[in-house]
Amino acid sequence: MKRRYLMTPGPSPVPAVIREALATEIMHHRTDEFIEILKETNEGLKYVFCTKNPVLTLASSGTGAMEAAVTNFFSAKDKVLVIVGGKFGERWAEITKSYGLDVVQMDVALGESPTVEGVKKMLDANKDIKGIFTTLCETSTATVFDIKGIASLTKDKNILLTVDAISGLGQDALLTDEWGVDVVITGSQKGFMLPPGLAFMSVSEKAKGFIKTSTLPKYYFSLAKALKSYEKNDTPFTPAVNLIMGLKISIDLIKKDGIENMWANFRKMSLAAQEAAKALGLEVFSKHPSSSLTAIVAPSGINAKDVVKKMRKEYGVSIAAGQGELEQKIFRIAHMGWINGQDLMMCFSLLEKVLRDCGYTNFKLGASVAKLQEVIYG
Amino acid sequence: MKRRYLMTPGPSPVPAVIREALATEIMHHRTDEFIEILKETNEGLKYVFCTKNPVLTLASSGTGAMEAAVTNFFSAKDKVLVIVGGKFGERWAEITKSYGLDVVQMDVALGESPTVEGVKKMLDANKDIKGIFTTLCETSTATVFDIKGIASLTKDKNILLTVDAISGLGQDALLTDEWGVDVVITGSQKGFMLPPGLAFMSVSEKAKGFIKTSTLPKYYFSLAKALKSYEKNDTPFTPAVNLIMGLKISIDLIKKDGIENMWANFRKMSLAAQEAAKALGLEVFSKHPSSSLTAIVAPSGINAKDVVKKMRKEYGVSIAAGQGELEQKIFRIAHMGWINGQDLMMCFSLLEKVLRDCGYTNFKLGASVAKLQEVIYG
Repeated sequence: MKRRYLMTPGPSPVPAVIREALATEIMHHRTDEFIEILKETNEGLKYVFCTKNPVLTLASSGTGAMEAAVTNFFSAKDKVLVIVGGKFGERWAEITKSYGLDVVQMDVALGESPTVEGVKKMLDANKDIKGIFTTLCETSTATVFDIKGIASLTKDKNILLTVDAISGLGQDALLTDEWGVDVVITGSQKGFMLPPGLAFMSVSEKAKGFIKTSTLPKYYFSLAKALKSYEKNDTPFTPAVNLIMGLKISIDLIKKDGIENMWANFRKMSLAAQEAAKALGLEVFSKHPSSSLTAIVAPSGINAKDVVKKMRKEYGVSIAAGQGELEQKIFRIAHMGWINGQDLMMCFSLLEKVLRDCGYTNFKLGASVAKLQEVIYG
Repeated sequence: MKRRYLMTPGPSPVPAVIREALATEIMHHRTDEFIEILKETNEGLKYVFCTKNPVLTLASSGTGAMEAAVTNFFSAKDKVLVIVGGKFGERWAEITKSYGLDVVQMDVALGESPTVEGVKKMLDANKDIKGIFTTLCETSTATVFDIKGIASLTKDKNILLTVDAISGLGQDALLTDEWGVDVVITGSQKGFMLPPGLAFMSVSEKAKGFIKTSTLPKYYFSLAKALKSYEKNDTPFTPAVNLIMGLKISIDLIKKDGIENMWANFRKMSLAAQEAAKALGLEVFSKHPSSSLTAIVAPSGINAKDVVKKMRKEYGVSIAAGQGELEQKIFRIAHMGWINGQDLMMCFSLLEKVLRDCGYTNFKLGASVAKLQEVIYG
C-alpha cells in the first residue's frame, strides 16, 4: 500500500490526464488524424522552446538528440568547445570525442557556472572553434549556466551554440531565439511531464547551414531527413505515437499556465528549497542554483546515499543522490514539471524525519517546512 | 462515433490490458522495483526470440536498432552482403552505405525470396564478406525469407547474420539459436502489441566478438555500453519506462498463448487471407507469403490506394497500400500481434463492399468471408 512520490530530476511525475492520453487507442501514424496531432505538437513545441524555428520530435531518450547534435552539424576533426561542469557536460565530451571531433574542454568546478569572460577567452585562444556544447541546467550539481551570456558570444558569429536543456527546459528561463541559441535539446520526462521515450530539438537557420557541410555518418538521427518530413508534419521513421498523444496534453497544460509563469513559479520553488535547506543548517551545493532542482550537502558524517535510501525505502519518496565523486556528498530534490509546492512540503517534512533518524538533530522540527510555507505562500 | 480498426503492419492494435499498463503511475528507473521489471522482461524476451543470448531493449524505433547492428559490428570498408527484395532490404542498403561499408547487394525480385543457392553463390564469389543483412518478413511485399536456409551458410563461419524481424517476429517462425542467427531485431509495435517506441535486438556470442573489432563511431546505440548495463538489468540511458511496463504485460500474453501456437495461428490466418483473396478472383502478390501480412494485387483498372483510402475514410479500417513502385498496385492486410480471425472477417467483409464501390464486381458477395470461415474455423 506504499505510495510512490517522485522528486527526482527525471522521470518526474506524470499527471493523470497525460497517463490517460498514453492509454488512448493506438492510431496509425500515416493518417490525416495523426498528422493533425503532429501539426499541433510541432506548433506547441515552438511556444515552449521560445522559437520560430522547427523543433523536431525524435523517438529516443535525450542522449539520442545530443548525439544528433554532434553528428549532423560537424565533421571529424572540427574543433569544438565543450563546457564540462558535471556529468552532463562530460556526456558532451564523450559524444564529441566518440565522433572524432577536436575537443577543447573548458572545465568548470562542480557547482559553479562558466563565466562569459572565461568562455570568451577560450574562443579568443582558439579562433577555429566551430561550435560550443553546453548545458542549461547541469543536473548533477543542480547548477544553471548563463546561456544568455554565452549566446552573446556566438550569436553574430559562425559558431554553433548547442544547449542540453534536458532537465532545465520549462523551469530555467531559456529564450532560444531572443538570446540566439542555435540548437536546444530536451527529453520528455522532465518539464514535459511525460514518461521517457521522446527527445526534442530546435534547429536554427544557422544550424541548417551546418547540416549541409557535415560529413559525419548518420541515419536514424539524420536531421536532414527529419526536417524534410517535418515540413509535412511527418517523421522519417515510425514515431512513438502514444507518447505524442501525451505530448499534446502536456503542451495544453504548459500553454494554460504560460511558460513565463512556470519559470517564475519554479524560481520561487527553488528559492524556497534553498531557504528550507538553510533552515536545517544545511548548505546548498551550487553557487548558481537551477530552478529545476536543488542539491543539498549532506550533514557532516552522514552519507547522502543513506538519506536517499531511507527516503525511498521507508516513505516511498524518491530523491536523487549525487553522481560520480558527489555520490555520497549531496542529495538532490527536483522541482520540475508536475512537482509543486505541496510536494516540496511533503518531501522536506520527511527529510527532517530521515535526517533525525540518521543522527543529525541540529534543527527544530518543522523548521524547513515553515520556511517553505513562508516563501511559497507568503 | 466512427470506430478505428487497425489492420496495418504496424502499429498493430494494442490490447486494453497493455494500454492500461502504459497509464501506470511512472516509477524511477534506477530503483529495485524497476530493475525487477527489466529482469522479467529481459528473461521474457529470450523466450520470444528463442534464444539464450541477451536481448537488448533500446529506446528508439526499429530502425535505430538496425543502425546499431551496422555501427557496432563492422568498420568502414568491411565487405557485407545486403539482400534487397523490397523497401526494408533497401533500408539495410542505405544504412550500410551511410556508414561506408563495402556493400555487395543481392537483388531479389519483388515478392520473391532469395534462394539459399543464390546467397551461397554470392558468398563464394566474395570470400571476404564479413556479414549478411537480411529480412525475416519483407513488409513491403509481404514475403517471408528463408532465414533457416541462409543461416545454414553462416552458422559455422565467421560471417555475422543479422535479420530484420521487425514485422515478422511473433508470426513467422524464427528459431534464433537453433538456426544460428546472430542478431535479430524487432520493434514494439508489431508482434509485441505495443505502441512504437521500443526496439529489441538479440546478440549472439559471435556478435559479441564482432563488437570488439568494430571501429565505426557510436554512442547512444553503443552495444558494448548496453550489454554492460544489461548484466545488471539496467540500461545505459534513461529507458522508456512506461512502454517497458506495457512490455511486461505483452510478454505475459505471448507466454500464455505460446510462441509456437502463435506461429501456427498466424500461418493459418495467412492461408485464410490468401484463400479469401483468391475467392474474390484476386491474386496474392508474394510468391512466399509471410504469416504476418498478406499483399493482394488490386483488380485491373483499380488503384490500390483508392481501396485503402475508402476503407479508412468510409469504415475506419486501416489497411496499407503498397510502397514505392507497388504503391498503386497492391494493398496489404496485416495479421499480426493482437489481430485475430474475427478482424480478418470484418476487414474482408468491407473489402468486398469497397471493391464493388470501386467497380470490381467479379465475385459473389460473401465469397471471401465464407472462405475465411472455412479455413479459420473449419
